[in-house]
Amino acid sequence: MSRERLEVMNGHKGGVVWFTGLPGSGKSTIANGVQERLLQSGVRCVVLDGDELRKGLNRDLGFSEADRLENLRRAAQVAQLFVQAGMFVLAPFITPMDSFREVVRSFFKPKDYSELYVKCALDSCVRRDPKGMYSQALAGKLPDFTGISAPYEPPVDADFVIDTEGVELQQCVDTLVQFVQCRLQ
Amino acid sequence: MSRERLEVMNGHKGGVVWFTGLPGSGKSTIANGVQERLLQSGVRCVVLDGDELRKGLNRDLGFSEADRLENLRRAAQVAQLFVQAGMFVLAPFITPMDSFREVVRSFFKPKDYSELYVKCALDSCVRRDPKGMYSQALAGKLPDFTGISAPYEPPVDADFVIDTEGVELQQCVDTLVQFVQCRLQ
Repeated sequence: MSRERLEVMNGHKGGVVWFTGLPGSGKSTIANGVQERLLQSGVRCVVLDGDELRKGLNRDLGFSEADRLENLRRAAQVAQLFVQAGMFVLAPFITPMDSFREVVRSFFKPKDYSELYVKCALDSCVRRDPKGMYSQALAGKLPDFTGISAPYEPPVDADFVIDTEGVELQQCVDTLVQFVQCRLQ
Repeated sequence: MSRERLEVMNGHKGGVVWFTGLPGSGKSTIANGVQERLLQSGVRCVVLDGDELRKGLNRDLGFSEADRLENLRRAAQVAQLFVQAGMFVLAPFITPMDSFREVVRSFFKPKDYSELYVKCALDSCVRRDPKGMYSQALAGKLPDFTGISAPYEPPVDADFVIDTEGVELQQCVDTLVQFVQCRLQ
């Protein structure tokens, strides 16, 4: 009930876009760009930052498959609380497995949830390597690094796909802003 | 940075009032009453519901001392995320031990955080018994029930105290709304 009142106050619906994609595919960069644009147009929007969550709510978790799933489970529950508070959530998480994405999706009503696949070939992600993690993983120093030492299953039924290969960031942001605008109504 | 922008949009600061008090002292009832009033005046306000959290984010936790602390730790981290999103959070949790309250407080900046003690004598809480839990605990069926089979340490340094004994709910709500109004500016 408070959700509806907050949505009326905010002038838009709550909801979530859950990102999936390889490390370095551009998830966080796009999420931050989209948040900037949505804030400018008065949308109450948050980005759930996986690195930040791992310093706080999820600091007891590692990178085993079980811990990664629990990391996502908690992030999704938090996203759901934000949706109940009438906010729009951008959730850029690798979310590597189909089974993980099914668990995440299960916490939301269909109308509140969209899965976004941020698509980029592995070798391009390795070249970008924004956090220097691929080079560590390729040197054998990261045992559970998605794309190198842990699997990534590309989604086959994402609600929306953004291909970041050879596309300007600004264009990716524009595309997702348009998609989100439809979900806000 | 997005916090400040959301606060400007909302017209008020984010923050949290963390409740502590015995089961049946009136925490949730007051929180819901205050939320209603704050929503009416356009404040973006959420109540973190402990029972709801235990069905979602914290559904893996029981009622041992360690699990209760973890329950509170996660709730506090979620509250902190809401504060970062410019929202005002009412967090009615028993939070029975001084040490638990210290952990909770440690996650927030002093300007964002207030501890509220909802004060009520144990025998009055037992008489109210809104969820029928005291009668179960007194019958020996609940091994970790605060006030009966688990300890409650009354806080000595709460930022604000509301005594619910012999005071009308509406007056308790009025008092807390006034307190929160000062924290919103």
